[in-house]
Amino acid sequence: MELVAGNLGRRNFLQTGLGGAIISLSSCSSPGTGRRSESARPPKPGFPSFREVVDLTHTYSNRFTHWAGGTAKVELETLSSTSRGDGWNVTRWTIDEHAGTHIDSPFHRNPDGLTVDRIPARDLVLPLAIVDIRAKATESPDAQLTLEDLKLWEAENGPLPDRGCVAMLSGWDARVEKPGFINFDDEGVRHFPGFHVDAANFLLEERNVLSMAVDTASLDYGPTTDFPVHTSWLGGGRWGIENVANLAELPPKGATLVCGAPKIEGATGGHSRILALV
Amino acid sequence: MELVAGNLGRRNFLQTGLGGAIISLSSCSSPGTGRRSESARPPKPGFPSFREVVDLTHTYSNRFTHWAGGTAKVELETLSSTSRGDGWNVTRWTIDEHAGTHIDSPFHRNPDGLTVDRIPARDLVLPLAIVDIRAKATESPDAQLTLEDLKLWEAENGPLPDRGCVAMLSGWDARVEKPGFINFDDEGVRHFPGFHVDAANFLLEERNVLSMAVDTASLDYGPTTDFPVHTSWLGGGRWGIENVANLAELPPKGATLVCGAPKIEGATGGHSRILALV
Repeated sequence: MELVAGNLGRRNFLQTGLGGAIISLSSCSSPGTGRRSESARPPKPGFPSFREVVDLTHTYSNRFTHWAGGTAKVELETLSSTSRGDGWNVTRWTIDEHAGTHIDSPFHRNPDGLTVDRIPARDLVLPLAIVDIRAKATESPDAQLTLEDLKLWEAENGPLPDRGCVAMLSGWDARVEKPGFINFDDEGVRHFPGFHVDAANFLLEERNVLSMAVDTASLDYGPTTDFPVHTSWLGGGRWGIENVANLAELPPKGATLVCGAPKIEGATGGHSRILALV
Repeated sequence: MELVAGNLGRRNFLQTGLGGAIISLSSCSSPGTGRRSESARPPKPGFPSFREVVDLTHTYSNRFTHWAGGTAKVELETLSSTSRGDGWNVTRWTIDEHAGTHIDSPFHRNPDGLTVDRIPARDLVLPLAIVDIRAKATESPDAQLTLEDLKLWEAENGPLPDRGCVAMLSGWDARVEKPGFINFDDEGVRHFPGFHVDAANFLLEERNVLSMAVDTASLDYGPTTDFPVHTSWLGGGRWGIENVANLAELPPKGATLVCGAPKIEGATGGHSRILALV
């Protein structure tokens, strides 16, 4: 917790407006201030037109592999059912918050960070940059997305998009619901790709990136013991998406990510419908 | 149930592709067929560029008024908490599926309809038409959005958008979490606006509309006893969104609605993040 609190001070927390009072989440039209006055609005970047929708969301069920081992709790209690003669089908869910395709709010790791319902809606729609590390992830399940990978991406594609999302494409979504997804070894150590903390800190300090996304179960790579990426990134007021699917169907730049984050009061993250517009 | 099944036969169910096998939800690039072949794709309409995001979602909590009376069950069980010295904040949710801002899948009323996880992602992004009935909703809480209202909208704005969402703006979102939202009278009858079944059937039979949305607790207006709009609309393979917020911030046409529907296997609907791009 001290480490988390320490990070809050040195990151550009206020710059993104996450540290300020969220006056009107409902309008979400004035990122960075929460104010509605036309004159106070910063210049707004436009989002491009699009023709396709790509679903970046895995179906969530009690077969979904949980990071902690085993499978997620996903229970649908039947309250009403046409199969038993009722006029309606209605259930009540009991579901694990941090499994399946889901968002990590800043509060997941950072006691002073925003809960998921308080992330401004405007921040949930972002230009998407996809960094493809499939080649090295095939060679080693402990591959990390490094600062060098980001610089190579920028050399090929130009600067990482302002107020964007940077996604790691490792190819790991093909392993979902299989033992190789969390990939425990005989000593109980996990082996799957994730962001390197130097890459996360570059995005936090040198670029104006709001979100990161991974097609594995964690922003930090499997073998970590201290979770420096979660600590730094969520501590810096940013948020992440884990267990995304189908990134390989998208171009490295030009798509828009929509994070259908739950607006459940006090939640630390949770099941989210993630769509890409391209 | 017989009425629901009967509707399945006479509606243009196959036309929307909801009756066909959903081969690849992940690509979601070929509405109406589920096939991926380039040559088989129908002409794809483009979506316009946008600059703003408007949040159409109410915050969901155990204060949210339930249609059935009382409030919704929204419980967050703490599994891990920084306030008690853990390194993480993690909860497990138990939540009512049909309260808060949520989607009704076809299966909610129609035993042969799609569960929410099987609605093609491509259908969750739609051009939005907003029909403003605030004037008559102020005069009577039993106001309905009628066929005449749709025809007046078209006279002013042109044809309702193909594969779109038609939303009812009654102004009822201002009443959320207050007794006037469900608005029971002394006899236990509800009083709030909704769609008239003739309007729903017009959208189903004469226009290619995929979704309807209301800023009240039900597609059917409060006093109904037989729910003809749910029966016809969900029976026809369409879906709806209830308890939306902030429609008054949007133009009558030109916005794009993104329905962040849950992708939870077998769910009949549920809490959804609804965003408008404009």
